[in-house]
Amino acid sequence: MRLALGVAYRGQAYAGWQSQPGGNTVQDHLESALSQFAAVSIRTLCAGRTDAGVHGLNQVVHLDAPVDREQFSWVRGTNRYLPPDIAVQWCRAVGDDFHARNSARGRRYAYVLLESPVRPAIEQGAAGWVFRPLQAESMREAAQVLIGEHDFSSFRSAECQAASPVKELRSIDITRRGAYWRFDFDGSAFLHHMVRNIMGCLIAVGSGQRPADWMSDVLAARSRDAAAPTFAAAGLYFVGPYYDATLDLPAHTPAIDWLPHA
Amino acid sequence: MRLALGVAYRGQAYAGWQSQPGGNTVQDHLESALSQFAAVSIRTLCAGRTDAGVHGLNQVVHLDAPVDREQFSWVRGTNRYLPPDIAVQWCRAVGDDFHARNSARGRRYAYVLLESPVRPAIEQGAAGWVFRPLQAESMREAAQVLIGEHDFSSFRSAECQAASPVKELRSIDITRRGAYWRFDFDGSAFLHHMVRNIMGCLIAVGSGQRPADWMSDVLAARSRDAAAPTFAAAGLYFVGPYYDATLDLPAHTPAIDWLPHA
Repeated sequence: MRLALGVAYRGQAYAGWQSQPGGNTVQDHLESALSQFAAVSIRTLCAGRTDAGVHGLNQVVHLDAPVDREQFSWVRGTNRYLPPDIAVQWCRAVGDDFHARNSARGRRYAYVLLESPVRPAIEQGAAGWVFRPLQAESMREAAQVLIGEHDFSSFRSAECQAASPVKELRSIDITRRGAYWRFDFDGSAFLHHMVRNIMGCLIAVGSGQRPADWMSDVLAARSRDAAAPTFAAAGLYFVGPYYDATLDLPAHTPAIDWLPHA
Repeated sequence: MRLALGVAYRGQAYAGWQSQPGGNTVQDHLESALSQFAAVSIRTLCAGRTDAGVHGLNQVVHLDAPVDREQFSWVRGTNRYLPPDIAVQWCRAVGDDFHARNSARGRRYAYVLLESPVRPAIEQGAAGWVFRPLQAESMREAAQVLIGEHDFSSFRSAECQAASPVKELRSIDITRRGAYWRFDFDGSAFLHHMVRNIMGCLIAVGSGQRPADWMSDVLAARSRDAAAPTFAAAGLYFVGPYYDATLDLPAHTPAIDWLPHA
């Protein structure tokens, strides 16, 4: 039986999602915990890999269950073997044609940014930081340029493994509460470093280093050299994928309410 | 010249505020950083000690500056020597009669609690957790019992060094957003473990294990045996002290906006 799981994790201590020879990835910990719970080796496939230091609110994976267990047992039993900053949040039976990555209709990311003359402490590792004041209107104007289907090569890292640089960015919402900015991204799929590269450019615009219409030039250049440096991983949250509504999979975990809201 | 500093810290990695022979306290790190910045030994006195694992949003300390530096240099210079989860947020010159603890007119704490069948991951170390659903009304009714000047011996740890168990609790506000509860406490001063012991009792009431009017019995007993167990340190934030308005000291740091709001 194929199962879908929702997983929340704080990425600060990990070398990203994907298994690697050096270990210490979220996938390594998850598969080790699942395998200990089921007493048989289990592999998973995720909706969207995240980099070192990036957090997951509702990462979705699928697996083919080699043993029969209650759905909530998969949650509670697996969590017993996971470190305290990674936890399975839900489990659902899905059809054998469900695929965590290929079935996704889209993905959401959020970036949380502290604007303050002084560096963060409480939210260290969990928010990006700018000491220059940011202007909302110029950032919103620049963000609008990116909405739609585009070749996002300018925002793609050299290590990106995606077959095509053409993706559909559906919305970027920019809101603020107190000292915290929040940037909500919704798109078909995202290239490697795409959100962090867009963040670097939005901050260059918001802080007045670049005019808003510079974003059009960056997009048109289709070259990584045209864009600003990749912004910090600390403030980036993979909110999660979304699927056809008929699948009825949870689109959120409680952790969505942890992020500063507008 | 006497200076007041506002300090924010994530308490998870530290053995509490107060210096101790084993080291690794927030005070140890702060005084070491100040002393490195000023190139002369500096001691501080704080508004309210916090326990291991408890966070500070706007802890206030005073010190007598042995060297003359710009106020913002004290902030930025000291932060260079502090670990990434501790940061001085502001510095102000104050009169020689200012005393971070004795001059305080009151103190605020906040407790953040996740209500979810599944344990936290993202907010690990930064929120308490209950898996049983909580009822707001019964908790608010029980909290009302505690407002005013009372002998809080029932909520006082055996190690408490306060001269008197009589304190004035000015308000307890209980709000919720999504899966997160937030409890805001305002009082003249707080006994050791007082907020965490009140939290244990409020949760016993909110989860239906005790009726709301049980809180009156606990308060009247003036005995730690009457109350619920001390609740987890992870969700507790020392929001900070407040002073006479004429002193014009910052009552908040940007980190106040980090907490989930109602």
